[in-house]
Amino acid sequence: MTVQLLDDTFLSDPPKRLELADGFEFRHGERIAPFTIVYETFGELNRDRTNAVLVCHALSPGAHAAGKYAPDDAKPGWWDGLIGYGKGIDLHEHFVVCVNFPGSPWGTTGPASIDPATGTPYGSRYPWVTVEDMVESQRRVAGALGIERWKAVVGSSLGGMEVLMWAALHPERVERVISMAAAAAVPVSGVAWHLIGRKLVMSDPAFNHGDYYGGEKGLRGLQLARMVGHMTYMSDEALEKKFGRRRRGGTRQFEVDSYLEYQGQRFASAYDANSYIRVQAAMDEMDLDEQFGSLDAAFARFKGRALLVSFDTDWLFPSREVARLHEAMTRAGVDARHLDIATPNGHDAFLVDYHLITPPVVEFLRS
Amino acid sequence: MTVQLLDDTFLSDPPKRLELADGFEFRHGERIAPFTIVYETFGELNRDRTNAVLVCHALSPGAHAAGKYAPDDAKPGWWDGLIGYGKGIDLHEHFVVCVNFPGSPWGTTGPASIDPATGTPYGSRYPWVTVEDMVESQRRVAGALGIERWKAVVGSSLGGMEVLMWAALHPERVERVISMAAAAAVPVSGVAWHLIGRKLVMSDPAFNHGDYYGGEKGLRGLQLARMVGHMTYMSDEALEKKFGRRRRGGTRQFEVDSYLEYQGQRFASAYDANSYIRVQAAMDEMDLDEQFGSLDAAFARFKGRALLVSFDTDWLFPSREVARLHEAMTRAGVDARHLDIATPNGHDAFLVDYHLITPPVVEFLRS
Repeated sequence: MTVQLLDDTFLSDPPKRLELADGFEFRHGERIAPFTIVYETFGELNRDRTNAVLVCHALSPGAHAAGKYAPDDAKPGWWDGLIGYGKGIDLHEHFVVCVNFPGSPWGTTGPASIDPATGTPYGSRYPWVTVEDMVESQRRVAGALGIERWKAVVGSSLGGMEVLMWAALHPERVERVISMAAAAAVPVSGVAWHLIGRKLVMSDPAFNHGDYYGGEKGLRGLQLARMVGHMTYMSDEALEKKFGRRRRGGTRQFEVDSYLEYQGQRFASAYDANSYIRVQAAMDEMDLDEQFGSLDAAFARFKGRALLVSFDTDWLFPSREVARLHEAMTRAGVDARHLDIATPNGHDAFLVDYHLITPPVVEFLRS
Repeated sequence: MTVQLLDDTFLSDPPKRLELADGFEFRHGERIAPFTIVYETFGELNRDRTNAVLVCHALSPGAHAAGKYAPDDAKPGWWDGLIGYGKGIDLHEHFVVCVNFPGSPWGTTGPASIDPATGTPYGSRYPWVTVEDMVESQRRVAGALGIERWKAVVGSSLGGMEVLMWAALHPERVERVISMAAAAAVPVSGVAWHLIGRKLVMSDPAFNHGDYYGGEKGLRGLQLARMVGHMTYMSDEALEKKFGRRRRGGTRQFEVDSYLEYQGQRFASAYDANSYIRVQAAMDEMDLDEQFGSLDAAFARFKGRALLVSFDTDWLFPSREVARLHEAMTRAGVDARHLDIATPNGHDAFLVDYHLITPPVVEFLRS
């Protein structure tokens, strides 16, 4: 196989599909059949299948983690800064898999997909997903690819929570985990903001309790929820530096106002409101402490190694939460390292500060 | 005059009304006539009128700053913890005045008041108020009471911003200012959250662009805006301590969820949505730096003394903003003191930590 390298990235394969004729069973008991799981792979699986790295995506993106489908694509995959030839997760050495999880709107059967039984979108009838469902979809893809054990499971934010769920649920199938800007549960401040975001979507009459398809694109409720979400991803420092109290040229409108409107409108014109509330609820519901009785118990069977990265201005998953996770892992006998990175970029640092996250990832994958 | 003391407070006079037959002119040029300003007074004005203290209220409350109208009132006035006989602002010594500002829904002619010209509420036609309008309403009451010079002007949050506006606009009429949990402008993070709150109200179809009166009580948009507002008043520490990730007995509902709903519903059932968006916009629009060319220039004519109080967990007006204000005042030659109080109670500390704010207020008023 030859790889076509582009200036800043590479040409990636189109998405692949795993068709589950017998369907997918959700943790809460519902089954959707048939069910399609969309995933992408990057690089090549070696003969003994020991170089597979699972990259877990978060709320907004999908399986297109790196590369461009065509040289003139406007943007490469969402974590192209970390994944690529000669990059942090080096595709010369690694076979990367990224699975679009159930509930997301990016290809895998989701709330906007047509229910063959009715000919209409699942909408309000789509199950409330869990992080375990996300892990299960990844496990199904691993099975299809014949991957018994991941060299590493890597992710940030919700993706980092999936990583931790892998270590807790399938410890024998994971050699290493890298979890960034994530913890074993969302702290109450994040839960509160997420709840408000979901209320915004669900209070929009146009959302019609989830059966809104065919109506206007870009629900106002989802735009507003995204603005709230966006605020929790940005540090005060970044807001101060980027906008301050500046007005838009010649008007009294604050620059931050038009920025938030732009972010809200852009997101809501593309993302499915049913996906939004479900994926965020899954994030809030995950609580390894509650699920396993204690954090120590959650990681008691995990014999791999862990790299936990926090960002000191991340308000959603503060460093102290990651420190608590690190302590629990250490008590559970895991060889875990906690790296707290100083950056003004808040929660989103994992999408910005590649010069800071690349060296520890390279070192950890080599070890 | 004899004062009836109750167990924890005192019996206060009913609200007073200043009727402006020729109306009130707003800074942006509109005039409403006739116009009523509601205010309350507490304690007695001394013969040479040197013991008058103006207390400025913030977004939520009105002129009822202290005392109970009747012994069986459920609650006393909003700053009863600081104002009273033997309290921080001691009514044995001081005559306290609190004026309900234009735009507020608590008595002074506001958006919900009936326009005699049409027989319907002003609604969307009510002017967008400014902090200068608030100060002007207080100046009108001072005139009616024959108060040339305030011994002190005191307030917190938006009230603290009014205090600073007094020092900038009418420096000769103010002997002392006490500004708590406030700065000369709202920093961008607060502006962004306020903007989102206003968008929530204005995006509610039931708000009907402001002409919603007669419809359902308790607009969902205002409930949601209050939830957002409430979040910005609470510190993460307080949220963690008060709720954590606890669920409501026997259900999966987060306790913080039912708390936010309760706060939103309680507020929206009483407060006017038109007032909410106008008062908050006034707060965001104030910027002494911009208005006077610099903060130093804003306070150049003020010869009084200043006590500036910040709370170290106040996220809306961080201590560093108050420190910046203090530096500017000092450069402008003002005898200013900045007290940064350590508390887990965030922005709302001025309504909670009376044991911490009372001693410096007593000392400062005596000096």
